[in-house]
Amino acid sequence: MLTVVEGFSKFSKEDKIDWIAKNCTSNADETKRLLKKYWNENPRTQRIHDEFIENTLSNYYLPFAVAPNFKINEKLYAIPMAIEESSVVAAASKAAKFWLNRGGFKTTVLGTEKVGQVHFMFDGNKTALRQFFDEVKPLLFETTSPITQSMTKRGGGIQDIVLIDKTQLLSDYYQLHCTFETVDAMGANFINSCLEQISKTFEAKARLKPNLLEHGENLTIVMSILSNYVPNCIVRAEVSCKVEELNDDELKASLFAEKMIQAVNIAKVEPYRAVTHNKGIMNGIDAVILATGNDFRAVEAGIHAYASKNGVYSSLTHAEIKDGVFKFWMEIPLALGTVGGLTSLHPLVKLALEILQQPTAKELMQIVAVAGLAQNFAALRSLVTTGIQKGHMKMHLLNMLSQMGANEQEKNELVVHFKDKTVNNANVRAALQKLQAK
Amino acid sequence: MLTVVEGFSKFSKEDKIDWIAKNCTSNADETKRLLKKYWNENPRTQRIHDEFIENTLSNYYLPFAVAPNFKINEKLYAIPMAIEESSVVAAASKAAKFWLNRGGFKTTVLGTEKVGQVHFMFDGNKTALRQFFDEVKPLLFETTSPITQSMTKRGGGIQDIVLIDKTQLLSDYYQLHCTFETVDAMGANFINSCLEQISKTFEAKARLKPNLLEHGENLTIVMSILSNYVPNCIVRAEVSCKVEELNDDELKASLFAEKMIQAVNIAKVEPYRAVTHNKGIMNGIDAVILATGNDFRAVEAGIHAYASKNGVYSSLTHAEIKDGVFKFWMEIPLALGTVGGLTSLHPLVKLALEILQQPTAKELMQIVAVAGLAQNFAALRSLVTTGIQKGHMKMHLLNMLSQMGANEQEKNELVVHFKDKTVNNANVRAALQKLQAK
Repeated sequence: MLTVVEGFSKFSKEDKIDWIAKNCTSNADETKRLLKKYWNENPRTQRIHDEFIENTLSNYYLPFAVAPNFKINEKLYAIPMAIEESSVVAAASKAAKFWLNRGGFKTTVLGTEKVGQVHFMFDGNKTALRQFFDEVKPLLFETTSPITQSMTKRGGGIQDIVLIDKTQLLSDYYQLHCTFETVDAMGANFINSCLEQISKTFEAKARLKPNLLEHGENLTIVMSILSNYVPNCIVRAEVSCKVEELNDDELKASLFAEKMIQAVNIAKVEPYRAVTHNKGIMNGIDAVILATGNDFRAVEAGIHAYASKNGVYSSLTHAEIKDGVFKFWMEIPLALGTVGGLTSLHPLVKLALEILQQPTAKELMQIVAVAGLAQNFAALRSLVTTGIQKGHMKMHLLNMLSQMGANEQEKNELVVHFKDKTVNNANVRAALQKLQAK
Repeated sequence: MLTVVEGFSKFSKEDKIDWIAKNCTSNADETKRLLKKYWNENPRTQRIHDEFIENTLSNYYLPFAVAPNFKINEKLYAIPMAIEESSVVAAASKAAKFWLNRGGFKTTVLGTEKVGQVHFMFDGNKTALRQFFDEVKPLLFETTSPITQSMTKRGGGIQDIVLIDKTQLLSDYYQLHCTFETVDAMGANFINSCLEQISKTFEAKARLKPNLLEHGENLTIVMSILSNYVPNCIVRAEVSCKVEELNDDELKASLFAEKMIQAVNIAKVEPYRAVTHNKGIMNGIDAVILATGNDFRAVEAGIHAYASKNGVYSSLTHAEIKDGVFKFWMEIPLALGTVGGLTSLHPLVKLALEILQQPTAKELMQIVAVAGLAQNFAALRSLVTTGIQKGHMKMHLLNMLSQMGANEQEKNELVVHFKDKTVNNANVRAALQKLQAK
């Protein structure tokens, strides 16, 4: 039975590992050996990774891969991806290849506005509050200038601060809704630092303002924090071609286009389907987000909330056939950075950005959106033609065989054997045993 | 300028690396050296990780850490986390410690139903379709029995298959809505295999059914696929204590409780806030999802869609004060596995599951939900008291200093120095230079 541990975070890394190995696992020596096996040989490199977070014991490996042949706005990219799910990189590569000779991907950044809010409660006079806000607004900009100085030099800063009355939703609830341009930084620390200064100034000046809080009115700052919901930080990605270019066989091409439209339309009206449809998009997006050192939880939250913005959770991608042209596209919110944070700390993130030709944040938005659109195209294409299991199953089969200790030759033979058979644990084990008994 | 590459997926790993190094980076030798630096020394271990996905070049390190002292239903856990964001593990550990002597976390699994659907279009007679479905339903179960056999032995299987008329949303659109119990498996492959068999049988029998398709009616299976939206696969996690137990100072305790309620209420009515509020929950959830080899895109999509189920994207957590007791809780959908997939392939995933005392899928649901609730509690606690930047900034400062090449002693001195000062790139660089010039 595990016991309480005091001061764990102050333990040395060795002592942390000792404690976990001894108290949480049955074979302490084996646990220590395993955790250390995943350390980098180079202690300096290892230290970099240890310091990213607290209580680090080892490195969790995610495969770092690359999907080549993405043509985006006439420029070619090989896109780095870090992801554990089989078929994601294969699907991305296939979709890239498919569109390579059909015009490639077209992308546009439709906005880069970041958002942060000071949330506060006020039970006094609304007109007095608005008047006070108008008076104090220039000072809110002024007192944040030490923080915004270097961002302003790079072309960013606070764009606006607006007082919003939300008392109809929650009594006494108001916001200072602030918008930001953070150029190539994701900007979380910058935005939060600005907001905390804005709220300090706002509160301090409110306390001094005649007629605002003089009769026992209450003003309470609840919190000041950036929002990961960025509906004005939007990128659009699109592919299109003539319907007959979708397949060498004209009948197949038109049937395929029609089924793609049906699949997208279903994901538009049916949340059960929309969730998995969009999950597939995120397979591509998160793989690039991780490889480029961005925050996938932030991106996930913003995109899924955007998918529900019309009241029903719905498909992020759209498809149409118009004048004989098949078009497939999406517009999604993406707040990304290519400077700051992990981008300058994680050696493989630096490499990923180099592989992408050192993109600006706006360029990275476009690349990430393409990875998502490509993934969705590949998934729908499988779904409406061969079914999802065919592609998945080959990788799944290889993983199962590895786990069962099959060698390369056995793997190759069994991949052929299972081409038209049901892959499940029992069948694979039986087939392997039969092969090994030969 | 990058060129198109043919047959990349068939290249050996060395050749893939060569191609990327030469074509996408400025110093090919340095790129090769870096990618190989992240390989595991042990070629067998490396091969395991290479095979997870396609085109693997190296291992992307995520810190693998642990947050101790979680008391869940009276049992203690140290929770493994794989995450790149600083403060997540620290926040988890703090929240665990806070609740340790206040009764700990209480959890309940409210359901474990998984979902999959066969989506099809049919433009014929509705009554005939329903009649056909009732007739063919036993056969749908029967023809999947080779697939469900071993799952049935473990207590799972297909629970029901229902025909749903969705033609009001989209003309001619129907579903076979299937529900599953997959016990300790996440079950994606199992569900998809079942669905593909169900759709095959359904379509084949429909073609033979008199009066269904005899007058030129069309029946088209569009796709068969599991859903990551699992509103009946739900876990509840909760903490509670007397308001006065929240702080040694009674006034502070009651003020804190009130502000926590305000913060949650704001996240309930304001999507801009809800997105980041829930993003914080996902910081804790995804860290455990990754460490235990589950699919974070699936979990993210299902949870965020659930957060929008009432038409407005809203807070996943709830808080109340009732009869002097502060209660903080959430109910979230979580479809997880502790067998199959990465859980048996990734050595650190196996270790993570051992550290968690080999949980069943239901136990893992509870642990993951607690990690999410703890993270949200810690984030709100910072937000409504000191502000989010104080905690974040210490880790951020350490990362910046590492990047600037500061040694341990310089780091220690500057952490003290910046305790009450604004942390930004310019200030930190200046302070470090001043210290080094001494």
